[in-house]
Amino acid sequence: MIVTNKSITLAARPSGFPKKSDFKLVESPVPAPGPNQFLVRSLYLSVDPYMRGRMSGNKSYARSVEVGEVMIGGVVGQVVESSHPAYAAGDIVAGDFGWQQFALSDGAEVRKVDPTLAPISTALGVLGMPGLTAYFGLMEIGKPQRGETVVVSGAAGAVGSIAGQIAKIKGCRVVGIAGSDEKVRWLTEELGFDAAFNYKTTPNCYRKLLTLCPQGADVYFDNVGGEITDAVVRLINVRARLVICGQISQYNLEKPETGPRWLWALIVKQARAEGFLVFQFRDRYEGALRRIAQWLKEGKLKYRENIIEGIENAPRAFIGMLKGENIGKQLVKIADL
Amino acid sequence: MIVTNKSITLAARPSGFPKKSDFKLVESPVPAPGPNQFLVRSLYLSVDPYMRGRMSGNKSYARSVEVGEVMIGGVVGQVVESSHPAYAAGDIVAGDFGWQQFALSDGAEVRKVDPTLAPISTALGVLGMPGLTAYFGLMEIGKPQRGETVVVSGAAGAVGSIAGQIAKIKGCRVVGIAGSDEKVRWLTEELGFDAAFNYKTTPNCYRKLLTLCPQGADVYFDNVGGEITDAVVRLINVRARLVICGQISQYNLEKPETGPRWLWALIVKQARAEGFLVFQFRDRYEGALRRIAQWLKEGKLKYRENIIEGIENAPRAFIGMLKGENIGKQLVKIADL
Repeated sequence: MIVTNKSITLAARPSGFPKKSDFKLVESPVPAPGPNQFLVRSLYLSVDPYMRGRMSGNKSYARSVEVGEVMIGGVVGQVVESSHPAYAAGDIVAGDFGWQQFALSDGAEVRKVDPTLAPISTALGVLGMPGLTAYFGLMEIGKPQRGETVVVSGAAGAVGSIAGQIAKIKGCRVVGIAGSDEKVRWLTEELGFDAAFNYKTTPNCYRKLLTLCPQGADVYFDNVGGEITDAVVRLINVRARLVICGQISQYNLEKPETGPRWLWALIVKQARAEGFLVFQFRDRYEGALRRIAQWLKEGKLKYRENIIEGIENAPRAFIGMLKGENIGKQLVKIADL
Repeated sequence: MIVTNKSITLAARPSGFPKKSDFKLVESPVPAPGPNQFLVRSLYLSVDPYMRGRMSGNKSYARSVEVGEVMIGGVVGQVVESSHPAYAAGDIVAGDFGWQQFALSDGAEVRKVDPTLAPISTALGVLGMPGLTAYFGLMEIGKPQRGETVVVSGAAGAVGSIAGQIAKIKGCRVVGIAGSDEKVRWLTEELGFDAAFNYKTTPNCYRKLLTLCPQGADVYFDNVGGEITDAVVRLINVRARLVICGQISQYNLEKPETGPRWLWALIVKQARAEGFLVFQFRDRYEGALRRIAQWLKEGKLKYRENIIEGIENAPRAFIGMLKGENIGKQLVKIADL
């Protein structure tokens, strides 16, 4: 039996919103591991907002994907063949194996996943990069204190939904901003957010926020940017912390957007806006994952996955995620364990 | 001899740039101190950008000046009559005595000035609020490290000129942005800035900054905001600190300005923008003033004053300062000691 490796490459740099033709399905032979390498069979692929940045040619914190290259992306898979002393066939691993069915690895930036602890797909979500992003962004940049009000944009996404729940664990009033009534219901009825609203059907987000945050906002966990952030800034409290985690409203614009200038609000409120990348907390992942796992076990933290099947549907999953079609973590299931 | 107290009141809330008719010269009898009060004769009045905010009716960190009220403002003066146990006639004091020749005080928020240590006018500048603002903004928010590049906007103003010099003391490369060639010469030839440029005659501030900051910018001390800040943000380094001290370009706009959104840059650079008010460091003024005084004595810190004479000219001094006509600290001399 000849097995081919289906992968999705970048066919063209998108202008504005990515479309399916910006991607290409390619078939190639499954590679064989060289010395100190192992072969991974992908089980789940994560699609995340940051990938939009890598599709553009702009200089950023990480190098761009070149046209013709396999799209980068986090994957949970199983080792099927190994010449690496630390990895054996059968091991479940998570790493940046890209949008493909099979990948070679030398073990760099790979972590082993214990399938007895939690469903392995969570290594891409609540127990992976999105969970760590929520944890460190909220705890280290936002520093929420009991009784404070925390506003989360993109609240029903993989990161926002965890950030909001951690803020609840920390004793805060948590208000979520999301893009559908179904998301709002999930946040308030299942995740325990104190309030949430659908910005797409809310004529004046600022006025809505005023009613939902009678004490103003002390922490703002921003995944979205743009007009939503403009509205939140108007109600920040003295010494507020704005955690700038993502700006998904801006990633797919053909022309950069302009908006009202509000740096003066940071002065008046003695407030801070701080951006971060989860990698800056790399040395502390282990402790954070233990804490998140404990909250999961105690039922204090819930998660939801939106799963689309088949590597060929990864572009659709990615584009849908950028449009906010998912609730919780958007995954692509590539194969059964 | 009947002595009258000339004061300047707010005649009208300005729309856009303040004009002379927004102020009114008023004469009234000199008041007599009641129990635990003293009467101050003003010697120097400080005019500062923050006053523009108090002239508007908008809610802010401090209450607005009402139409008909004496304009608020820092003054150095001499006690001429006292029923207060801690203040005696002849004492030199600094406090918020307003735009007037005489003021009553109960001693709240007043500090005594030692006229043997430095010229008393410095209690409104390098050894007063502007010096403290520069010191705490740079040291506590900017946290400059030896070898880093610090960019200062409004660099020839009362705060910017001190912030830049403290950054030099801390071993940084310091680049100033100012609004005239004369200011630029002062910064580079007298204050020891490594480079400076006149933004009014520079067609592309970003390109200019690129050549003057070959290592990017680690700290940005912002007094100005607007397009100048947009340009600086494009060259910030990883973990940069943006000290949001003032936004003078925005204070006199009739309509709020819009600008490009750049919060994404904070993410990519894991950077921070933080606003502050000097009052938040109130408990530590004394130590900071000792340090600044020591630098002055050692010749490491220089200052310049721009003095206009006469209380009736305070509006002109204030408007000129908002237009950037001053180099260094803008003062109004009200009387001789």
